[in-house]
Amino acid sequence: MKSSRVVIVGAGFGGLQAAQSLADSGADVLLIDRNNYHTFIPLLYQVATGQLEPEYIAYPIRTILRRFSFLRNARETRRQNRVPKVQFLMAEVQQIDFSAQIIETDDCVISYDFLVLATGSQTQFLGVPGASEYAFSMRTLEEAIALRNHIFSCFERAIQESDSSRRQQLLTFTIVGGGPTGVEMVGAFVEMLRGYLRQDYPTLDLRQVRLILVQSGDRLLADLPEKLGIYTYKRLRHLGVEVYLQTRVNQVTLGSVHLQNNQIIPTATVIWTAGLEANSPAISEEISLANKGKLIVHPTLQLLEQLNVYAIGDLAYLEKNGKPLAGIASEALQQGVTVAQNIKRQLRGKLPKPFNYFNNGRLAIIGCYSGVGKIGAFAFTGFLAWLMWLGVHLMYLPGYRSRLLVLFTWLHTYLWRDRAVRLILSTKDVGIQNRQVLPKAKLNIFQKSR
Amino acid sequence: MKSSRVVIVGAGFGGLQAAQSLADSGADVLLIDRNNYHTFIPLLYQVATGQLEPEYIAYPIRTILRRFSFLRNARETRRQNRVPKVQFLMAEVQQIDFSAQIIETDDCVISYDFLVLATGSQTQFLGVPGASEYAFSMRTLEEAIALRNHIFSCFERAIQESDSSRRQQLLTFTIVGGGPTGVEMVGAFVEMLRGYLRQDYPTLDLRQVRLILVQSGDRLLADLPEKLGIYTYKRLRHLGVEVYLQTRVNQVTLGSVHLQNNQIIPTATVIWTAGLEANSPAISEEISLANKGKLIVHPTLQLLEQLNVYAIGDLAYLEKNGKPLAGIASEALQQGVTVAQNIKRQLRGKLPKPFNYFNNGRLAIIGCYSGVGKIGAFAFTGFLAWLMWLGVHLMYLPGYRSRLLVLFTWLHTYLWRDRAVRLILSTKDVGIQNRQVLPKAKLNIFQKSR
Repeated sequence: MKSSRVVIVGAGFGGLQAAQSLADSGADVLLIDRNNYHTFIPLLYQVATGQLEPEYIAYPIRTILRRFSFLRNARETRRQNRVPKVQFLMAEVQQIDFSAQIIETDDCVISYDFLVLATGSQTQFLGVPGASEYAFSMRTLEEAIALRNHIFSCFERAIQESDSSRRQQLLTFTIVGGGPTGVEMVGAFVEMLRGYLRQDYPTLDLRQVRLILVQSGDRLLADLPEKLGIYTYKRLRHLGVEVYLQTRVNQVTLGSVHLQNNQIIPTATVIWTAGLEANSPAISEEISLANKGKLIVHPTLQLLEQLNVYAIGDLAYLEKNGKPLAGIASEALQQGVTVAQNIKRQLRGKLPKPFNYFNNGRLAIIGCYSGVGKIGAFAFTGFLAWLMWLGVHLMYLPGYRSRLLVLFTWLHTYLWRDRAVRLILSTKDVGIQNRQVLPKAKLNIFQKSR
Repeated sequence: MKSSRVVIVGAGFGGLQAAQSLADSGADVLLIDRNNYHTFIPLLYQVATGQLEPEYIAYPIRTILRRFSFLRNARETRRQNRVPKVQFLMAEVQQIDFSAQIIETDDCVISYDFLVLATGSQTQFLGVPGASEYAFSMRTLEEAIALRNHIFSCFERAIQESDSSRRQQLLTFTIVGGGPTGVEMVGAFVEMLRGYLRQDYPTLDLRQVRLILVQSGDRLLADLPEKLGIYTYKRLRHLGVEVYLQTRVNQVTLGSVHLQNNQIIPTATVIWTAGLEANSPAISEEISLANKGKLIVHPTLQLLEQLNVYAIGDLAYLEKNGKPLAGIASEALQQGVTVAQNIKRQLRGKLPKPFNYFNNGRLAIIGCYSGVGKIGAFAFTGFLAWLMWLGVHLMYLPGYRSRLLVLFTWLHTYLWRDRAVRLILSTKDVGIQNRQVLPKAKLNIFQKSR
């Protein structure tokens, strides 16, 4: 009997979990991703702020696949030409044709019997003028590295700048979006300021640094209980962050952000965490889409129109108790398991079962030893939530080596208040989106007018 | 009394050492570099082959300066506006004017009383057609990352390629230059092949991998005693490397290398380690240059024409016993000390003293637990040299954190035969010199013709 072909597109949390759960299905499983690594998105902000090396949170997909590819007989791994249980293809998917059951990539055409779409989400700028040109987003490793380059360039420029208002602009960091990512990011800035920056730039007056968090809604962390949002607001204010609630961004320009309240803030850095939309591959047929381009799925995670095609994670639209899912890693992981079980059921001629999300809680980190969390009916704040956040993220990182290195780095950061990773990779060579051209400095050290 | 102004250009081994030795001179010291990090060049090849994270061998200059900036009173580090002993400026030097005693950067003009030029060297392609376009060089962190992207892309392409000759081309790696860098690089490839590649690409026939080392001279490691070169040759042959001695490269093209013996080798990767030239900043006056654009210096390291300007490291031309110096880190480090002593002597109105190089030996690593070395009259090979090489490089790495992480990574590599860092950063975003456009693959997995 010819075995069935299952193709998974996207090696995020959902796609990788689906691959793992399908490894022993007996089907030919192929995982496709445009990168050769899995990005641990929840820690991207620590790359952007120079706390973690990019390599710690980007894990080679082949190393992960290796682990569940050869379980039966470890010795066989040494043999040449042994076909692994899950194959990997690094390619960008161009188009999917449901009726022909094929996927077109840059290089080739791949047929499938079952398809799992797990391509996640990307930043949505909500149509705000200038945002897509001048604001930084932080959804891929390259974006996080570009942001790191920019942030550290701002400090290098500021220390050379003798004009106070231009220095102020370089030292103003605006974060748009008061969800977990925005809160994490602004908290990481606070930690940076309290940590090594003072030692690195002893001649720079860090009191000039402004951290601004802009949130359209009336409270932070809208997905969590209200009291956690209030705690977060108070905590961030206490840490010196300017928080604007019920404030939208009207425009982003080169060097400033325009708020709904007509305030124009000169800022060299605008970080956009305010919106996400489905990162869907092009599909040749009409399919049912929900808000933000998400694919509507049956409770079984099958597409409404295509029962051999599944969508999971941020790409899929599914409601629970009348509310859409929150778009977090644990949902994608659980959906990865369900989708594998359902495909196995279909392979055996059975009907797929509906996905049932087990809510194991939510955590968000603020930084400076505080966080917030909710597990079941229990909502808690402060050091315990901070510690749990670190523990949970450490646990979910793929690979013991990454875990050890991240743990070591965190200890180093908190014990010595230092950060090792603050390379500015030459923007000439690493031509990543150079969104804000930094103003030329007026040097205030060693300068001699001609 | 107004204190004198010493400017150091370049934060490599020599420049950093000079800054450290000048920190307590009482002069205003300014260190300029185009990057905000010091690159530990001897380990770049391990970044290119995915053994070390780029961040481990690129150390923030401000962290280094911090260490010798505030020795007298540790508490003062917390005070604002305290001027550190050595200041840092991240800038690209455009031009130096000796008569006006000024340095022009992108942004500003800096005056000096004493100047130390320590801008090192860059790859020289010796006029070989196509080399500067199609061969990879490996002198900067960005170049090493670009090479890493390329090497791992070759394997990802090769596993998809069904055409045997194109697969052969993707799996042929040609290293030009039989000095320490070329030998190290080809050895690192051997370790990769024997290590994780087999597990990552189980369906790829790694016997197709060709490693080619091309050397124009009649032996490898020409700077070391002949018997070490012979040992290295035999060892590399034993490890499966094709070594071409007395062979020049006539041309590099997209996808092949043309040798002097009229052989044309199809290869997707040519790595150029065969030549270096001085990376001199533009200077407005005529000065005496030696071969390869090096600045000729007095035995005191002062420029022939400018007694308040010093040149050290790869940029300087100096002979010892009638032979030019070898261009290694320990020479630059010792010159950094001498230059500082000489400037301090000049500040006190004394004459500078000649540089006297203390040869503390040479080491080169081959890989697979072997290396070669010479200390005094004692030449040795094998495991001892390998271990010493690792130990010495670990010792010279700046910062205990990097040392610990590199040690940990090496142990991990040698004990588990694994490498963690093999990210292919999207060349679209990380637009680093994409020298070899990889041929489109003919997919051999899961393909279905239309």
